[in-house]
Amino acid sequence: MFNKHSKCNNGLHKQATFEKGSGCLSSLAGTGWNILAEEVSFPIAVIKEQVLLNNARWMQDFSDRAAVKLAPHGKTSMAPELFNVQLAQGCWGISLATVPQVINAAQHGVQRIILANQLVGKLHMQLLADLLSTSALEFYCFVDSKENAEALGEYFTARNISLNILIEVGVTQGRCGWRDPDNITPLLEVIKQFPHLQLCGISFYEGVIHGNEAEAEIRSFIKSISRLVSRLYRENLFDVDPVMITGAGSAWYDIVATELMSSQAMEDISYTAIIRPGCYLIHDTGIYQRAQDEVVQRSQLACDISGELISSLQLWAYVHSVPEAGLAVVGLGKRDVAFDAGLPTPEYFYRPGTEKPISLDKAWQVVSIMDQHCMMKIADNALIRPGDIICFSSSHPCLTMDKWRHIGLIDDNFVVNKTIETFF
Amino acid sequence: MFNKHSKCNNGLHKQATFEKGSGCLSSLAGTGWNILAEEVSFPIAVIKEQVLLNNARWMQDFSDRAAVKLAPHGKTSMAPELFNVQLAQGCWGISLATVPQVINAAQHGVQRIILANQLVGKLHMQLLADLLSTSALEFYCFVDSKENAEALGEYFTARNISLNILIEVGVTQGRCGWRDPDNITPLLEVIKQFPHLQLCGISFYEGVIHGNEAEAEIRSFIKSISRLVSRLYRENLFDVDPVMITGAGSAWYDIVATELMSSQAMEDISYTAIIRPGCYLIHDTGIYQRAQDEVVQRSQLACDISGELISSLQLWAYVHSVPEAGLAVVGLGKRDVAFDAGLPTPEYFYRPGTEKPISLDKAWQVVSIMDQHCMMKIADNALIRPGDIICFSSSHPCLTMDKWRHIGLIDDNFVVNKTIETFF
Repeated sequence: MFNKHSKCNNGLHKQATFEKGSGCLSSLAGTGWNILAEEVSFPIAVIKEQVLLNNARWMQDFSDRAAVKLAPHGKTSMAPELFNVQLAQGCWGISLATVPQVINAAQHGVQRIILANQLVGKLHMQLLADLLSTSALEFYCFVDSKENAEALGEYFTARNISLNILIEVGVTQGRCGWRDPDNITPLLEVIKQFPHLQLCGISFYEGVIHGNEAEAEIRSFIKSISRLVSRLYRENLFDVDPVMITGAGSAWYDIVATELMSSQAMEDISYTAIIRPGCYLIHDTGIYQRAQDEVVQRSQLACDISGELISSLQLWAYVHSVPEAGLAVVGLGKRDVAFDAGLPTPEYFYRPGTEKPISLDKAWQVVSIMDQHCMMKIADNALIRPGDIICFSSSHPCLTMDKWRHIGLIDDNFVVNKTIETFF
Repeated sequence: MFNKHSKCNNGLHKQATFEKGSGCLSSLAGTGWNILAEEVSFPIAVIKEQVLLNNARWMQDFSDRAAVKLAPHGKTSMAPELFNVQLAQGCWGISLATVPQVINAAQHGVQRIILANQLVGKLHMQLLADLLSTSALEFYCFVDSKENAEALGEYFTARNISLNILIEVGVTQGRCGWRDPDNITPLLEVIKQFPHLQLCGISFYEGVIHGNEAEAEIRSFIKSISRLVSRLYRENLFDVDPVMITGAGSAWYDIVATELMSSQAMEDISYTAIIRPGCYLIHDTGIYQRAQDEVVQRSQLACDISGELISSLQLWAYVHSVPEAGLAVVGLGKRDVAFDAGLPTPEYFYRPGTEKPISLDKAWQVVSIMDQHCMMKIADNALIRPGDIICFSSSHPCLTMDKWRHIGLIDDNFVVNKTIETFF
């Protein structure tokens, strides 16, 4: 049987074991670890493979029906094997957040990448220029300032390499992005000084718009961007045709798709709309499930797709202690699971040696979390003891994925059939 | 020059580069990357080596003067190279939180380990038994339930391997730990059924006691534990002499040391007191700096030690955008720095090409943080632009350390002289 430690540590351990913290990043080929037989070291993170595929198909189906391209944000998983699952479903490309992420994805075979961020810094520009000059990568990055445009222009001109850029437009009190689409000339003037900067379109991220009026504000924001795209297109300021327009995180992708594809302002121009949701592949039972509930409520197109997004990620951990009535302490902590958008949700109880996991009701609740433990409220008379196993779902997949160097893909029998590597 | 990517990726990159996310865990020997010359890929995490050594010495000095042993919690850094720094200063051993952490530390040469947690689960028991039977490791774990004592007793008896255990005592509404030190007979009866379970002492963790009366409650809690130790000692229920008593996180170690070493209840017995603070080595400018301020206020012993604990960990990141007056968006996010106990603090501003970093005042404040960015409030007229670099300190070192696979050790000239590997 596969032994992770044997690769790292002189074969000390003979048992198949799937462990966090060994520090060995060799690609794992082992299979067959049964979670219920305790053949892994808890806590572990696993993904239900069939659910993952379902989610990949669902969002691709949505994008196809909405007539937009899908460039899912890869920073959620930073698992190139999952990028390939997404690309195999028909994704246009992969979006990423940092230069190391881009390099990593490119080295794993991704051929079209949006750096949904500014390309900043001497070393980063050099790494990107090196990558572009030694590969066929199709690459785009965001630009939202004169200073950054000038730095990029000077660097890529000196290297004599063309760089595809998208002007990022943002909202007041938001994140990055040029603030006033009606007054973008100062930025354009800098960009146009550098023929090596290929202006390919406009980008935005609506996910920083919150509050009761969010939907209306997002629609209005996208309309203002559509008008900008249309104006620049008619003024021949883009270097490509069709021009690109890209936005959308995991909460408002339906609104973005609708606004972009029904835009009156862009009616007569040639453009490609690209959405960039990232969390759908893993999904969750927290903030993104609630966001998806709203998508399905408001989008006929989403309703029409058979099936639904389902949380695919599970955390399994041992009960360490039941020290007083109503409280179980579980070996799952901030080191193992996201806690910034809701605490993990107990889904199943399993006692080793019994037939199968039992679904838990809402009486089982994580009430607090520490670095390596969480405190779970249980019924005073709950039949639970140290050594029992709890399976949790979670909220905000990005911040669980980045806590694991390897994540198992499981089948319906709770067997890890493959492990995927993450690159955070 | 050293090139991390060259090890992983067919030598694509020629430039020395110190990057997150490449996924290559080969031990790094490269040196000489100058942060100010942008020879690294920001964001990066670095530790000031001299400050780290200062902190290691400070806590060892405290422990020596308090006549307690120091078994620092290694889960903070999970960097065996830092364990060795601590051991070289005279630490008694290393505390850890999980079985993979224990195995990892043992494999990196740590010879005395406290698993400050329950040893739960079939595979974990097997891994530990294998480790104990193939090494000279001196190992202790916590036990706080009859069920766990029975499971350990049966397993280690079957393997014919002795296991050193410490009974963990806890507080109501706390974390793990047997709740009533005056009524511990049911647990002792189970332990005593198994001669392979060597009862070596009592453990506790006072860090879950909060509120205005915390100090008084902690003192009272420790007194109750001292009485328990004394009673069990006089009843010859321990299997070793001197007996061990261990507690203390990073906030109350002075109180724990004082209470244990001035205990009237334990006046006539032979015991070794061991404290387990973990955060002191890295330290911070947040919750642990505030806790340390209180230590120094109340502990003459801590006051008498020359020098002080100093935050050693820095995060350096690029300004990506200054999209509106008063706001800078920086490429440092939840993926890079702890955010659960206060947001990172901007400490220095550096513009590439200038002489040296400039200290920042409190007008510079991180006001929110996302996965890959943070939003920094700045003066409306602040001279700052994309490509500038901000150096941050942070709060809660454990949750920053676990976001990095490699961390640089820097000298006073901001040069990375060594990189250490973490094993989360």
